[in-house]
Amino acid sequence: MKAVICQWTRTQLVDVTHDLPRQNVPASAFWLREVLPYFPPAVHLAVIDPGVGTDRDALVVRAGDHALVGPDNGVLVPAARSLAGDAPDAFRIETRSDDSAGTDRTSWPPRRMSSTFHGRDVFAPAAAKVHETGVDRLETIPGLEPVETYESIRFPDPELSTQAADGTVLAIDGFGNVITNIPGEVVAARFGTDVCVDGEPQPLRSAYGAVDPGQPVVTVGSHGNVELAVNQGRGDDAFGLEMGENVRVSW
Amino acid sequence: MKAVICQWTRTQLVDVTHDLPRQNVPASAFWLREVLPYFPPAVHLAVIDPGVGTDRDALVVRAGDHALVGPDNGVLVPAARSLAGDAPDAFRIETRSDDSAGTDRTSWPPRRMSSTFHGRDVFAPAAAKVHETGVDRLETIPGLEPVETYESIRFPDPELSTQAADGTVLAIDGFGNVITNIPGEVVAARFGTDVCVDGEPQPLRSAYGAVDPGQPVVTVGSHGNVELAVNQGRGDDAFGLEMGENVRVSW
Amino acid sequence: MKAVICQWTRTQLVDVTHDLPRQNVPASAFWLREVLPYFPPAVHLAVIDPGVGTDRDALVVRAGDHALVGPDNGVLVPAARSLAGDAPDAFRIETRSDDSAGTDRTSWPPRRMSSTFHGRDVFAPAAAKVHETGVDRLETIPGLEPVETYESIRFPDPELSTQAADGTVLAIDGFGNVITNIPGEVVAARFGTDVCVDGEPQPLRSAYGAVDPGQPVVTVGSHGNVELAVNQGRGDDAFGLEMGENVRVSW
Repeated sequence: MKAVICQWTRTQLVDVTHDLPRQNVPASAFWLREVLPYFPPAVHLAVIDPGVGTDRDALVVRAGDHALVGPDNGVLVPAARSLAGDAPDAFRIETRSDDSAGTDRTSWPPRRMSSTFHGRDVFAPAAAKVHETGVDRLETIPGLEPVETYESIRFPDPELSTQAADGTVLAIDGFGNVITNIPGEVVAARFGTDVCVDGEPQPLRSAYGAVDPGQPVVTVGSHGNVELAVNQGRGDDAFGLEMGENVRVSW
Repeated sequence: MKAVICQWTRTQLVDVTHDLPRQNVPASAFWLREVLPYFPPAVHLAVIDPGVGTDRDALVVRAGDHALVGPDNGVLVPAARSLAGDAPDAFRIETRSDDSAGTDRTSWPPRRMSSTFHGRDVFAPAAAKVHETGVDRLETIPGLEPVETYESIRFPDPELSTQAADGTVLAIDGFGNVITNIPGEVVAARFGTDVCVDGEPQPLRSAYGAVDPGQPVVTVGSHGNVELAVNQGRGDDAFGLEMGENVRVSW
Repeated sequence: MKAVICQWTRTQLVDVTHDLPRQNVPASAFWLREVLPYFPPAVHLAVIDPGVGTDRDALVVRAGDHALVGPDNGVLVPAARSLAGDAPDAFRIETRSDDSAGTDRTSWPPRRMSSTFHGRDVFAPAAAKVHETGVDRLETIPGLEPVETYESIRFPDPELSTQAADGTVLAIDGFGNVITNIPGEVVAARFGTDVCVDGEPQPLRSAYGAVDPGQPVVTVGSHGNVELAVNQGRGDDAFGLEMGENVRVSW
């Protein structure tokens, strides 16, 4: 994909990650939403695409000064909403079939050379084309068709009461930290005390290093949500939690 | 290696992969051949070098507008042939021994500072020198000696009959997809039917997502070859195949 | 972190590694010391930060024409000493608390937006600020306070006698090669013979490929130290050694 982009345009390429959980659209949507708002205006390309080669569309989504390019499976939408503040504009990428004439590497619209790697064949050319044309001029690009509807992902909302929050594991990071959908605000007044995680009392602290190495700790992560961790260890193992599972934090 | 290149020249560095199977020259040669033709003219550096420190040569290979730099163990050759269309030009990189005078980081020819990391000590300086000089002017670089022969790798050819193809596993990608040397053309007319893989009927489909998640599928990958996969799973586990093993696809 | 830096400044970003052993300050300090001296003058950012959110300081260290940015846990110091040749200058990074006004992404001094990811919130802005201002003008940056003392790491010295070296495992690389603190000079005259590793005779050779694939070999690595390896295999498994363990090489 980077090679293809280099065929089209000379620009700075920034690798965000190659370590997203494979084929996991919700986890990837979470990480995109967390990371992309820290970028200056840019074209962001994401390939988490288990439906490649099926009839799912390929999308360019405009979110403020940013553009996102990827499959229409919802993975782009939480990040786009976070960047745009309101409903982002979406465009379907028209492609030409394999047997169309021409082998020019930078012909547009892109050819579907394979049915298994649209990251290379469709998204990378589209990202380069958008970068070259400008995010504010998507309407002038032939082969980008405005669409009204697209797949979306909404992360589950936690249930909050005065004594507990019933939430869900949104993601597990590379350190094994368990990231919930419970907003940090609900525990913000209780740092230094214990809270219960699924009934077990655990220390709530503002830093991993506030407990001894190897000890579990409840904290608020850099995303602003309640996080279940182990100082210099793996929270997912200690708390026995996987992505998508329910978790109750009470006090 | 990137640090050394930055000592020599200011240019765009593109990481292709750091995840090739360690020390595996044939698999790495396959991936180089697949990826490099998508780049615009560039200098490509590859370190898959189990023979580092032995008497194997270090090479610069010219393939059209591209140059490839790496060990003379065959890893560069399939990509060079793919880029050049005919016999590429090859040059041996002369090096100076450790005890030669001077500590200038950009002295040329390069010093063999170690016998275990020629990527850093030989290939990176050579790649930078070639980039600075120009691929069409390799003959002007002192210390690059034309060579007539070099190690080569040829991927095995499949045996094709009217009812079967006997092939080999060329590589397994990071998703676990099993990439064979059987050309996709032999099954192109049969999409939507079943074919047999080592005697077991399996669905032949044009996309991973055409079968249910967790189900095996035979498809044609982005490289154009027959690929054995599992939708959102690992084909290598499901088909019980490893690199270099034989596989029969019949119909 | 790369996104934040892109908010501040347009420069070349070079990923050195994302594969350091997690939370392992001594191993990371070793690799920084090995790698950074190969760079031209640059700002180097390292986040190996198990104490994030505790009262450990954030540092900018000036080492010759280079600057290093990261936590005050010793990880930067061996590299800084290697680059500077003498005592490097260190500055504490002042930060503002969460509730300070302003959401400008490039406000300075940086805001502690989280207590779990100062790489993003503190080190990345500081690295960009230092890059923009110039390593020779750190004293002009508000919020950088000179400090006299900081955490340090010193690698253990081996005990050398006329017939043996008692050393320690400093690091294990991605290939499984066991890197000791025993200087290569002590075995330099003995290449081609056997030496004993913890009492077992092993071949001392100048290259991995000088023994058959799968066979253990003692060599001198690209860092200049004695290394315990297996040709095309893993030395850590074969020699049964982990980071920090003692090892005796005798002859």
